[in-house]
Amino acid sequence: VAEWVTSARGQLREMVKLLARPDLLSFASGAPSVECLPRAVLAAIAARNIEADPLSLQLRAPSQALAQEVVSVMASRGVTSQPGQVLMVHGGQQGLDLAIRLLLEPGRPVLVEEATYPGLLSALEPYQPEVLRVPSDPAVGMDVDAVERLLEGGARPAFLYAMPEGHNPMGSRLPQGRRLHLVELARRYCVPIVEDDVAGLLQYDDTRLPPLRALDDRWVFYIGSFSKLIGPALRTGWMVVPDWALRPLSLIKDLATTDIRTVAQELITDFLAEGHLAQHLATIRAVYRERRDRTIAALREELPDEARFHEPQSGLFVWVRLPARFDTLALLRAAVDVERIAFIPGPFFGGDGQLSSCLRICFASCPSQAIEDGIARLGQLLRRHS
Amino acid sequence: VAEWVTSARGQLREMVKLLARPDLLSFASGAPSVECLPRAVLAAIAARNIEADPLSLQLRAPSQALAQEVVSVMASRGVTSQPGQVLMVHGGQQGLDLAIRLLLEPGRPVLVEEATYPGLLSALEPYQPEVLRVPSDPAVGMDVDAVERLLEGGARPAFLYAMPEGHNPMGSRLPQGRRLHLVELARRYCVPIVEDDVAGLLQYDDTRLPPLRALDDRWVFYIGSFSKLIGPALRTGWMVVPDWALRPLSLIKDLATTDIRTVAQELITDFLAEGHLAQHLATIRAVYRERRDRTIAALREELPDEARFHEPQSGLFVWVRLPARFDTLALLRAAVDVERIAFIPGPFFGGDGQLSSCLRICFASCPSQAIEDGIARLGQLLRRHS
Repeated sequence: VAEWVTSARGQLREMVKLLARPDLLSFASGAPSVECLPRAVLAAIAARNIEADPLSLQLRAPSQALAQEVVSVMASRGVTSQPGQVLMVHGGQQGLDLAIRLLLEPGRPVLVEEATYPGLLSALEPYQPEVLRVPSDPAVGMDVDAVERLLEGGARPAFLYAMPEGHNPMGSRLPQGRRLHLVELARRYCVPIVEDDVAGLLQYDDTRLPPLRALDDRWVFYIGSFSKLIGPALRTGWMVVPDWALRPLSLIKDLATTDIRTVAQELITDFLAEGHLAQHLATIRAVYRERRDRTIAALREELPDEARFHEPQSGLFVWVRLPARFDTLALLRAAVDVERIAFIPGPFFGGDGQLSSCLRICFASCPSQAIEDGIARLGQLLRRHS
Repeated sequence: VAEWVTSARGQLREMVKLLARPDLLSFASGAPSVECLPRAVLAAIAARNIEADPLSLQLRAPSQALAQEVVSVMASRGVTSQPGQVLMVHGGQQGLDLAIRLLLEPGRPVLVEEATYPGLLSALEPYQPEVLRVPSDPAVGMDVDAVERLLEGGARPAFLYAMPEGHNPMGSRLPQGRRLHLVELARRYCVPIVEDDVAGLLQYDDTRLPPLRALDDRWVFYIGSFSKLIGPALRTGWMVVPDWALRPLSLIKDLATTDIRTVAQELITDFLAEGHLAQHLATIRAVYRERRDRTIAALREELPDEARFHEPQSGLFVWVRLPARFDTLALLRAAVDVERIAFIPGPFFGGDGQLSSCLRICFASCPSQAIEDGIARLGQLLRRHS
């Protein structure tokens, strides 16, 4: 048995699962709000689609209709794409796993931000590559100058992992200048970018920057997901990849989970084809925007003055950096046992200890009217352990 | 890019996809018959379940209720198991991929039968292990004495892949004596067995041998699937594994596709809990038994006397061995273009050329009344190319 399955990360992951306890006011889960999932519409679609389509349960090639719908979704993000560049996956996580299986070569490192999505780190674990980290900031995201210095210095990562919109955990949005710079570096140094845009459709202002994929279609492997939008239990995401990569990625998907059309995909195809997405997005953006506003207002009220955080323009997360004397991993025990709240401690998002005074707040899944109470308890916890 | 994605096997796989052409009388697809999929029942369940369960679309831990239902299904196969040994997967193929990721160690070979499931060979491709092959027979399956000789000779495979029931492609059933011998070897030489039982519930006589897992719960990694029973598009299978292996396998599944409850799993849970499986199995066994009988009778009528085949007691396949002068890969072109029929040529199931005069007939997906016509065309093809 490979050692990594019993690693500290594995144990941390188990611990985080405990935070789903129903007696907690939880800011921990990264799941969408259950009221924001279109249950009635999908139930009606399911009843009709499974019954009416004689092949609904049968083995079928990937759906061209769905690929075309995804192309439309991409167009709404400002990306021009073709159905032949679209690969459906069992959630964004499978997109990461497939990209790694295609792009990672033995001996080559991977470049990520200092705080990054744990699912990527998990997916890398079987291969134990060197992980190069660059600084990142809740306001302006990845330090692209630091990326340039690494590449200039001779680093040749197998790929670079970026989350330019609604960053998990930092809540950051990468400004346009940095996006252009990053893509220019990818081209100059021939480094693929795996762009995780699972929160790309959850933007709360009118800026709506297009993703990196809009700037380059030869180096950017784009990953989107319906999990945060329609429902994690549908386990359906998509990739938009360079032309040459679709066939090998489809073969890898085929050996991993069989590259066929799923019942869940067919429900989503109808959901999109019937035009439900636009109204649904407007609804859930309003819900999440309001929760973000309440969360930010409460944090301003309750956190110690030295705490640093930034109002996110997209996604579901606020990143809080406390003074260095705080250890958020240790604090979590008291948070759960005494204050009955939960958050995710910084070390969950990075391999080294530098994030130990940070924590991630998800404002999506805590009921709106409980946010002030929950953040007040967080403030109380911090005052007591200060 | 890894070379294996452009390999001959990849190309063969693409070619086989073409056999889904609707103008063919096809014995090629391994899919179940579309009339045998319980569409009306699942549509009703979907309508109710997705609407009524407030968490139907939400992120949730794996379902204990489903694990319990799977334990009951296993009991019907003669296997005692615990919910804590059950891992749900995105179809049997993911079971293979996860087992490989857990068990395969660099430098160690894998032991398979001379003709084996192509999905296993595909899943092994990224790792390029040495593949040890033992003879296999359409009547009595894997040559377990040959396995013993290899192990005695010092071979130490990372695992041994077995399909004791409804073998794909050979249609064989491993007799009880060979099952006992195989499990005894696994214990003596500490070699895990990956047991693929996706056709285990499709048995056509009253013998009903329990799978290897009934004989050993420390070395046998059991894989079952709802694909051939209820619908491939549900992409839902299960593993029953040794106690120690559940946590690491769940972590591997988590990094590959996230180990959570899916909408499809919930539909299956209700399907099982409402007791639909027993009647459904009785119905589809009767359908497939009748098609098997027609297929075997037609083969006896139409094939040249030198052709060898065996009536399968389980599964969906008949393996036909023609005299060595036939090349089934070359024959397939004429079969498709002239006779408008399709089958899968032997080389698809093995790495070397020894299967070049063999072919696999699937009797499940060809409409019953078309079987005689289709097999007559096969006979005509063989007479013309004799």
